Amino acid sequence: MDNSIEQANGVLGKEITCTAAVAWGPGKPFSIQQIRVQPPQKLEVRIKILYTSVCHTDLSAGRARVVECIGEGVQDMKEGDHVLTIFNGECRICAYCKSESTNLCEKFRVDPLRSVMRNDKKTRFSTQDGKPIYHFLNTSTFSEYTVMDSACVVKINPKAPLDKMTLLSCCLSTGFGAVTNTANVQHGSTVAVFGLGAVGLAVIQGAKTRGASKIIGVDINADKHIKGQTMGMTHFINPRDLKMSAHEKIREMTEGGVDFSFECAGNLDVLREAFLSTHDVKYLYAIFLGWGVTIVLGIHLTPRMLPLHPMELFDGRRITGSVFGGFKGKSQLALFADQCMHQDGIKLEEFITHELPFNNIDQAFQLLVLGKSIRCLLHL
Amino acid sequence: MDNSIEQANGVLGKEITCTAAVAWGPGKPFSIQQIRVQPPQKLEVRIKILYTSVCHTDLSAGRARVVECIGEGVQDMKEGDHVLTIFNGECRICAYCKSESTNLCEKFRVDPLRSVMRNDKKTRFSTQDGKPIYHFLNTSTFSEYTVMDSACVVKINPKAPLDKMTLLSCCLSTGFGAVTNTANVQHGSTVAVFGLGAVGLAVIQGAKTRGASKIIGVDINADKHIKGQTMGMTHFINPRDLKMSAHEKIREMTEGGVDFSFECAGNLDVLREAFLSTHDVKYLYAIFLGWGVTIVLGIHLTPRMLPLHPMELFDGRRITGSVFGGFKGKSQLALFADQCMHQDGIKLEEFITHELPFNNIDQAFQLLVLGKSIRCLLHL
Repeated sequence: MDNSIEQANGVLGKEITCTAAVAWGPGKPFSIQQIRVQPPQKLEVRIKILYTSVCHTDLSAGRARVVECIGEGVQDMKEGDHVLTIFNGECRICAYCKSESTNLCEKFRVDPLRSVMRNDKKTRFSTQDGKPIYHFLNTSTFSEYTVMDSACVVKINPKAPLDKMTLLSCCLSTGFGAVTNTANVQHGSTVAVFGLGAVGLAVIQGAKTRGASKIIGVDINADKHIKGQTMGMTHFINPRDLKMSAHEKIREMTEGGVDFSFECAGNLDVLREAFLSTHDVKYLYAIFLGWGVTIVLGIHLTPRMLPLHPMELFDGRRITGSVFGGFKGKSQLALFADQCMHQDGIKLEEFITHELPFNNIDQAFQLLVLGKSIRCLLHL
Repeated sequence: MDNSIEQANGVLGKEITCTAAVAWGPGKPFSIQQIRVQPPQKLEVRIKILYTSVCHTDLSAGRARVVECIGEGVQDMKEGDHVLTIFNGECRICAYCKSESTNLCEKFRVDPLRSVMRNDKKTRFSTQDGKPIYHFLNTSTFSEYTVMDSACVVKINPKAPLDKMTLLSCCLSTGFGAVTNTANVQHGSTVAVFGLGAVGLAVIQGAKTRGASKIIGVDINADKHIKGQTMGMTHFINPRDLKMSAHEKIREMTEGGVDFSFECAGNLDVLREAFLSTHDVKYLYAIFLGWGVTIVLGIHLTPRMLPLHPMELFDGRRITGSVFGGFKGKSQLALFADQCMHQDGIKLEEFITHELPFNNIDQAFQLLVLGKSIRCLLHL
């Protein structure tokens, strides 16, 4: 690591030219090319990316790296620090950050539409001939160097394995935190997880850590059965093998429905199944303890509305969303990183099924889309 | 009152013949006719109705009256007690009743599809020639005498004015309790109320009692303006007078949206306006305190689904239903009745805009549907 910092030292505060994977429009393939990266401005940091990964949301979000250069006013990091990047930042100053009840920062909350830095509404990236390249989800990690607001950069223990820590920038925090922060699953609870991608598997890990009595995984990909069991899943349902619907099966298996269901598929029909698989009525007004809570984690890009009838709001079941697992990144993620390193049963290595050089980013996406990989680590 | 009990004494435990308004099918007009009412069975009571009223849900629910005859095993009432009837009962024995977190009883929760008594799955009403007449919403109060499960009958202070107490059987408890129990509106909160019928006005009363700083009423009926102000409303919006949408106007009036919105119209477009009029983000996971909670009180008889996009679950706003204001009827309604009698600012008399003899029940419905009445009290 020191090596990379030394290399960068010669250009501290100056523009850097480096390799990046640039998407020139939605759905376009990545072009691996040389880009120019400007120095960080006030409260920004420039970071050397060591590992990144791809996920369905990207398509691109977080990852682990080393601070290369800090901008004016950055107090909590210095060059050489090991850091995580987070797409859902925390300025620690706004009313939202000061509230204990949300992890959505007024300024740096996840915002797929913002593609420039807040300081000057400009981008820090450009092509060799000066054409601007835009940022994505506060992070933009498909580049050897990136510039980010310090609100989206979390310093972690230098002993933490940076390759596995990439998981905390997105899927692991999202799924695990949804269990421990948003749902607050209790010992002995029953849980159903719809969609066993990286987020769903992280839900399973969270539920296992909390001592859930039944953890039912649901996926139409039969390959997920073994991986789910490795993570702590106690039962597996493949809806394609059933003569009834998944929620009917789950209600049969749990005497009327699970305490918590997690929708990690980004599909509204699956969301409806998740909703119906919870036990109704009990604890109507309790958000943290009790029956019948569905937590939506999937990204729904459909124009369709929620498939819930308004009268179903009266039957005791509840539904809520969860962003980045309810974690306040700057305040809580370093501690969660420590927990991941030391707590028994958290199997970071099981999430990383493939490793590839950064140039093969398109192959990494292919593995993901085909359901072959959980996470493919890209080495820069 | 004693008079009526004495009259009834002669027939204690026997079948009674009395006058009732019978609907012989959905949407059919009421037929005023003589019916036979059987004696109460185990844990049931027969009640002499003194006052009833009509509401949009009825089209019939609660009302105030006197116990005429008790069935085997009823411990908490005796002949002559003044009582309220409730459509959302409380057996006080089931797991749901023992939970502090719901007011939906396993056996006697509001159920528009159940039309017989639980004891023997039969009705206690019949025509003179023995044709069965079915129960409605646990109560069936459009009759001089009715038979109910004791779980749906609440003994109240004999000094409470029975005419006004009819309001507690439905609209007042539903609206007021949604504010104090479900939403737990705090001093200084901002509130928007969509639909100023009896439930909406009760929401205003609850919000005023709690010390809300702004109480914005929304209705397309301009006549509601003065009535709303009498109840404690601070601002009135008639969407027909606006050049923008109601939620835009409300967000303008409240620096970004209200803390709590209440949908009391039973209309999905209104529900969407109510949802959008709350402040987003703050207190994402707090159900009782904070910004951005919409409480749905309206009955939605449409086949349409909730007009919310799944991604809107991630923006910090929440939506929840409330049944009978979150009150556990048997446990809490007598206390609420006392509060209504003694607390300043609760204006029961303002809800009762019309009084008619029971035979004019069709006229009472007409006043309601035309928006002329808040509540029309029917004297039996």
